[in-house]
Amino acid sequence: MRVRFLPMDVTVQVDEGTTLVEAARRAGVEIDSPCAGRGRCGKCRVIVREGRLSEPTELERKQLPPKLLERGFRLACQAKVEGDCVIFIPAASRVEEGKILTGSLIKLGEGQVKLSPLVRKRFIRVEEQTLKTQSADLTVLKEALKARGEEVDRLRFDIDLIRKLPELLRSSGFEVTAVLRDGELLDVELGNTENRLYGLAIDIGTTTVVGSLVNLLTGEEVAVASEMNPQAAYGADVISRLTHAIQTDEGLEELSERAVEVINRIIDELVLSSGVDRESIYDVTVVGNSAMHHLFLKIPPHHLATLPYVPAVSDPVDVPAWRLGIDVHPRANVHYLPNVAGFVGADTVGVMIATGFGRDPRLRMAIDIGTNGEIVLGRGEEVMVCSTAAGPAFEGATIRHGMRAAPGAIESFRIGEDGEVEVRVIGDGKPIGICGTGLFDIVAELLRVGIIESSGRMRRREELEGRIPRPLLERVVEDEEFGVGFVVAEGEEGPILLTQADVRQVQLAKGAIRAGIEIVMEEMGVKAEEIEELLLAGAFGSYLRKESALGIGIIPPMPEERIRFVGNAAIVGARMALISREMREEARRVAKTARYVPLATNPDFQMRFAEAMLFPEPAT
Amino acid sequence: MRVRFLPMDVTVQVDEGTTLVEAARRAGVEIDSPCAGRGRCGKCRVIVREGRLSEPTELERKQLPPKLLERGFRLACQAKVEGDCVIFIPAASRVEEGKILTGSLIKLGEGQVKLSPLVRKRFIRVEEQTLKTQSADLTVLKEALKARGEEVDRLRFDIDLIRKLPELLRSSGFEVTAVLRDGELLDVELGNTENRLYGLAIDIGTTTVVGSLVNLLTGEEVAVASEMNPQAAYGADVISRLTHAIQTDEGLEELSERAVEVINRIIDELVLSSGVDRESIYDVTVVGNSAMHHLFLKIPPHHLATLPYVPAVSDPVDVPAWRLGIDVHPRANVHYLPNVAGFVGADTVGVMIATGFGRDPRLRMAIDIGTNGEIVLGRGEEVMVCSTAAGPAFEGATIRHGMRAAPGAIESFRIGEDGEVEVRVIGDGKPIGICGTGLFDIVAELLRVGIIESSGRMRRREELEGRIPRPLLERVVEDEEFGVGFVVAEGEEGPILLTQADVRQVQLAKGAIRAGIEIVMEEMGVKAEEIEELLLAGAFGSYLRKESALGIGIIPPMPEERIRFVGNAAIVGARMALISREMREEARRVAKTARYVPLATNPDFQMRFAEAMLFPEPAT
Ligand code: FES
Ligand code: FES
Repeated sequence: MRVRFLPMDVTVQVDEGTTLVEAARRAGVEIDSPCAGRGRCGKCRVIVREGRLSEPTELERKQLPPKLLERGFRLACQAKVEGDCVIFIPAASRVEEGKILTGSLIKLGEGQVKLSPLVRKRFIRVEEQTLKTQSADLTVLKEALKARGEEVDRLRFDIDLIRKLPELLRSSGFEVTAVLRDGELLDVELGNTENRLYGLAIDIGTTTVVGSLVNLLTGEEVAVASEMNPQAAYGADVISRLTHAIQTDEGLEELSERAVEVINRIIDELVLSSGVDRESIYDVTVVGNSAMHHLFLKIPPHHLATLPYVPAVSDPVDVPAWRLGIDVHPRANVHYLPNVAGFVGADTVGVMIATGFGRDPRLRMAIDIGTNGEIVLGRGEEVMVCSTAAGPAFEGATIRHGMRAAPGAIESFRIGEDGEVEVRVIGDGKPIGICGTGLFDIVAELLRVGIIESSGRMRRREELEGRIPRPLLERVVEDEEFGVGFVVAEGEEGPILLTQADVRQVQLAKGAIRAGIEIVMEEMGVKAEEIEELLLAGAFGSYLRKESALGIGIIPPMPEERIRFVGNAAIVGARMALISREMREEARRVAKTARYVPLATNPDFQMRFAEAMLFPEPAT
Repeated sequence: MRVRFLPMDVTVQVDEGTTLVEAARRAGVEIDSPCAGRGRCGKCRVIVREGRLSEPTELERKQLPPKLLERGFRLACQAKVEGDCVIFIPAASRVEEGKILTGSLIKLGEGQVKLSPLVRKRFIRVEEQTLKTQSADLTVLKEALKARGEEVDRLRFDIDLIRKLPELLRSSGFEVTAVLRDGELLDVELGNTENRLYGLAIDIGTTTVVGSLVNLLTGEEVAVASEMNPQAAYGADVISRLTHAIQTDEGLEELSERAVEVINRIIDELVLSSGVDRESIYDVTVVGNSAMHHLFLKIPPHHLATLPYVPAVSDPVDVPAWRLGIDVHPRANVHYLPNVAGFVGADTVGVMIATGFGRDPRLRMAIDIGTNGEIVLGRGEEVMVCSTAAGPAFEGATIRHGMRAAPGAIESFRIGEDGEVEVRVIGDGKPIGICGTGLFDIVAELLRVGIIESSGRMRRREELEGRIPRPLLERVVEDEEFGVGFVVAEGEEGPILLTQADVRQVQLAKGAIRAGIEIVMEEMGVKAEEIEELLLAGAFGSYLRKESALGIGIIPPMPEERIRFVGNAAIVGARMALISREMREEARRVAKTARYVPLATNPDFQMRFAEAMLFPEPAT
């Protein structure tokens, strides 16, 4: 019978009844088998792509949840060949030499990070006790660890670990792998599992939750998965969720459960796609704004939602995974990165460490545009940060034909030389609305051609007659209900419009962010020209056109080449804190030293806001 | 209306409707009211001895469990006078000046202990946040702690604490008491509770469980309570309980639950008798033998019960109270003192620190006689320890008329000049059996008068004729079933006998202990004459007569004045570790440095044992 192994693509001829571990060995492929094929560690997982094998044994059913069995997962030491087959060996089950990179530099975010995870493993042979010593199990285990150079004198441990230790030592023949984190013995595992050490970085966004599974031996991302945040069922924006949590009895519980559920679904996905077993995920870092922080950690958010808007905690929060119900190793530490103050949360701290704030000597600014716009301004160790309530306009709310960036949304818009309009729709179908980036483009273009004045007023068709090409002119409409409007495109159910009221919403939103930018610059005593680099972070920022951002004046005027998109920098920060002890410290340090600039109490805020609501004069 | 306050015994005249706090104040007595009478802290507890007061308010029902209300507990800030009454103010609710003794020396056990509990309290006024700072609740709290000289930079905290913090700060008007343990913020309490700081020491004996409630500000024992160990339902001795835990599915669970239940009943009792609220108990230390250790902590004891008899852990075990289900402050740390090895458990470590082993420069021995006899021999830092399986004879098992030290048990026995017998019975009623101390006395006396030979053989009446007084002679009987016997007393249901078989049991038990003593002395290379002090520990040891112990030769011959009874030294050790950080360290050090002397593998043990079974020749 022919067995073909993927992804290495080698084929071998074996007899019926050969185990996959044995077949692989003959094919020159080593499948990692920590418990030496006893079917007890559950780590020799492979995926059957095609072909016939023996029925899953009882041991396999014990080690592999039904979800995995369904998807073709098997234990290679148990499954026997019964016909030609094709077997995929996930990276986690392959034995590879020299892949441990601890101490080396990993390129991540805006720089390099020294790989220095908080968790490490040590395979040890433990000396079996005799009647002469009668030493405790933990004592002999510690002696073996000491021989490997570990400091064991004050080793902490959880009682659950002690409860399983006696049986574990004996069923492994006293060959085990100790999982260590700082001065704590996190777990003891059967056989040699030194080459399985994973971590998980999570970004709990208001809209989307992202999980990144990282190999802590190499620093590499093994798999990534994301899902919509199901808390949206209680409100699209942060405020309505906070309100739900505060005003209903079970509200906080519900919102917290939703967050935990979605994270667990993401973990399921990561585990399935990577073949990593969830018990090999020993460390978790989380970022998210202050509201997500409280709702996930089940901290009553009353005082975050009401004056003076204070979080319960800014310090990083560490909780064992089992207490939060996160389906990884039960004693994995879940580390929620620190908040700064007010609404400036760990997501912003993630952005800061990912982009080098607090270290980079240049004068730089980072903006994360969302319902709340966070603005970071820094030079060397001096960092200032503020949060502005932009409102949900950029996410489609409060805009007549606004919608999220989903199929059917107009995501970009250009006006050509002779007035023809070029529209791009997500998913390429008929347009059904306008998402945030589209909104930016439309307003910027209408400003450029003069349909919108810098005051924000939309000119009526009469005023524009002869000043703009005819096709464009015809798109300017007027109506009792909405006043002046512009037909962006024809949708399924009639024209998709940008109205005067929409422009006012955009003005309010961009005004809030721009006013924040101005005030933070004033606080530091710097001018826009001096800013050497402006980083746009977040999903929204990544799809924006620089011209449009400059065109509507949400950012101060500056040469386009100084503007850079950094994508979801928050989760990059979470990954950094996951793979590097130094970066976790750095997050703590930056969160503490960053100066929080409150806007609400700034006497200039109202004036700056009023000014910032105006659009720039179009360049001619 | 007249209100009389106890125990100070002052009486005051007040109007109907006056609160007890107010009445006390007028009487010149201060009742501690941390939440300033808002009925929210539940700490102003008093006990109504007589008289009529207002019905318990809703707040009182919330703060005081039904069990306390039934017993007359009330909140002094809520209960109003409705007639003459007598009110007892428990010490915990009194405001007393200058009673904090931290750092001072407390007389305990065989020496003095510096009062240095691991938990401390700090009353702080926290600066309320403004829109200017928007600092997190924990941040402002830490600032206030820092102002009081606490190191707060890396303060650890439990997520549950953060969950309640926002509400707590605000309902207390930002005046709170922080409870700290090392680098951890254990709790934050409403108002000033600085003068309530309690700890609990527990001794889980095979037969009896004892709890000692200690004021950690003074080091004093506030209350003590004990109960029979309900694990006895699964076997009187350690071995049958271990067997139950190993051989039945729910066995370990059941035994652990029993231990937790009895501890909680003891806590109920301590709380009722002292008026201390259980949430003010922040630290717990536990001693007990290795078997009790595993059964209480729910550690599978298979390998402790089978060759080579090893515990899972010897290191001290720390677990939060809520995880074990112990009804004190949920985040109180339960610290089980370290085991040594084999069957030498934390109870012996307790004895060692209580009696100064590892420090005292003299050559000393301590013996804890029980089902297992632990023997400690030490001089300065050199300490050796072993455990011998004496079997349950001294607890009444395997002895024809044996019984526990309970009412009806013959606890002492003397033979007078002319052969008359003097018997003392526990509870002074008719005798129903013989307990351990009685057994020692009887055997020692029969040896002295020659009824028992030093080989252990009982002489028959014929052999004794003329050599002992007649009344005594008549007590020597013979029977087909038991052979030779001695009538100790007339019981309800016929004569209470000591038979030849009983003497053999005593020989086996005392032989085991004496052999252990000899082997440990040999290991250290010392002779009995050199022992400067011999300490008899444990409940059994305390009731023993020195003459009888010497008479049957369970201990080597030595002048009586060198022998001392030290009572339940194990719990004294637990109290030391509770009130003193240094003693907790000392326990860890002694447990590690004490050399475990295994008996089973000692080639001399069988010979020593055979020799030790013989009785000494009576002094003439
Ligand atoms: S090697 Fe297959 S289960 Fe352990
Ligand atoms: S003072 Fe009475 S409950 Fe707090």
